[in-house]
Amino acid sequence: MTTVDVPSATPARTCTPDRDDARLSRLSLNQRTTAQWSLREAIDGAVAAGIPSIGLWREPVAEVGLVTARAWLDESGLRVSSLCRGGFFTVSEPGAVAAAHASNIAAIDEAAELGAATLVLVPGGLPDGDKDIAAARRRAVEALARLVPHARERGVVLGIEPMHPIFAADRGVVSSLRQALDIADVFAPSEVGVVVDTYHLWWEPSIDEQIGRAGDRIVSFQVCDWITPLPADTLLGRGMMGDGHISFPTFTTAVAATGYAGDIEVEIFNADVWAAPGDEVIATMKRRYVELVQPFL
Amino acid sequence: MTTVDVPSATPARTCTPDRDDARLSRLSLNQRTTAQWSLREAIDGAVAAGIPSIGLWREPVAEVGLVTARAWLDESGLRVSSLCRGGFFTVSEPGAVAAAHASNIAAIDEAAELGAATLVLVPGGLPDGDKDIAAARRRAVEALARLVPHARERGVVLGIEPMHPIFAADRGVVSSLRQALDIADVFAPSEVGVVVDTYHLWWEPSIDEQIGRAGDRIVSFQVCDWITPLPADTLLGRGMMGDGHISFPTFTTAVAATGYAGDIEVEIFNADVWAAPGDEVIATMKRRYVELVQPFL
Repeated sequence: MTTVDVPSATPARTCTPDRDDARLSRLSLNQRTTAQWSLREAIDGAVAAGIPSIGLWREPVAEVGLVTARAWLDESGLRVSSLCRGGFFTVSEPGAVAAAHASNIAAIDEAAELGAATLVLVPGGLPDGDKDIAAARRRAVEALARLVPHARERGVVLGIEPMHPIFAADRGVVSSLRQALDIADVFAPSEVGVVVDTYHLWWEPSIDEQIGRAGDRIVSFQVCDWITPLPADTLLGRGMMGDGHISFPTFTTAVAATGYAGDIEVEIFNADVWAAPGDEVIATMKRRYVELVQPFL
Repeated sequence: MTTVDVPSATPARTCTPDRDDARLSRLSLNQRTTAQWSLREAIDGAVAAGIPSIGLWREPVAEVGLVTARAWLDESGLRVSSLCRGGFFTVSEPGAVAAAHASNIAAIDEAAELGAATLVLVPGGLPDGDKDIAAARRRAVEALARLVPHARERGVVLGIEPMHPIFAADRGVVSSLRQALDIADVFAPSEVGVVVDTYHLWWEPSIDEQIGRAGDRIVSFQVCDWITPLPADTLLGRGMMGDGHISFPTFTTAVAATGYAGDIEVEIFNADVWAAPGDEVIATMKRRYVELVQPFL
């Protein structure tokens, strides 16, 4: 990031050249990319870097409370590109089903209060000892359907996030964009959409066709790279764009062709990224975004 | 495994009760499951355990030579359920393309000499620095098509092995049974089939439908489990049936419904399995097979 000397009386962020860099006008910092930062630090970091949007997580929002978070966001001028995350509704035990539903209702309310463009839904994996993935998938669909009336009432679009099959057992039984769209198709696009994340979907054989099919159901476009060898903790195996095997120009072109006009979130789970200073991470992220994503929007 | 005392003049293997255990009549030991064993040891171990079939790998066969391997197999009475592996033909540089083709022609000849039910084709990943997965997939299809005439001439059925998307970058760009069938469909079933491996395919959303569609194109059914957490080396993350998240009864029932009459190979890449004595591995493998797979054939 380039910086300039400014009179000390002027808030630095209004004088950062990047503040007016039109190339960043749709870039969003997902909080997890700078997991080393609190919500306050992430908001300040995004503003200072000229990033106009942020993807929030429920836990750091809860730490400061919804009212405070909302006030900080209003003051910052940042858009909220998504709230992560609802879902985890593949549970089968009645008490767990009720608890998951209640948690998701709360998440919808939070997304509404925060003005998030979508509530990201991570479906959840197989309950302990349960090997019936087809039944888990059916429960996820049923749980989603039970949420739709409340989401509609609160004006929140639910975003199904298909996850890489590496997570099918323990995190997300919706494993392809095709499957996510098959689920979403029975609802209105204003109610249920899909999250397109390059990391989760880059391998899908008919991905271009499915992105085209998604059309206005794409409620979030998230980017990060698939790197090899996978780190020992595969949950933290996501790389900065350009460090792995994904063609971001190809992917971005396909998403842009649908007319997607929302923000592009950079969401990276990676221990090395989290160990680096947040400002450095953001500087790299901006550079890669401007190089590999933005020109193809 | 139960053993009985026998007169020392009688070869032990003919007197092992399991030798006549009809429940094992379609079980095959893939050599990789007992990677700690040489080909000679694997043949002897399978025979001693009453396992009637073996899945061979080219490298250990090459160590003793094709003629010797063939003689040992003839003498043992074992069937050869598959030869692993051809493929790795996503390369793009002309010299590499020619080398891959030559290697695959040799593999077809070896499969023919060994009487293997199929030559397993692992498609290969992205060449170094190449991010165009769609083009890599096209090259794999073209390379496959160039092999078909020779395979037909030698009477070898080529078996496309779709691989878990975790391997899309570095090992196999054919990532689902649906995709494998889309490729196979332009050839005759006697020329190009598919390998159904539970580990690679258990997550596929429409797997039952795709297995049904596969019908007589299934040239190999391989079983092992998806375990979590994944080991640090994900290539060695396969578990013994029953140790992970896969429902073998469900999967086996679907394959059996196609009329598949071939062998069922147990193929496990796992450092812990390889560290155990081969006979113990085989004993566990037989027990789990009889419990979780065989009753559903």
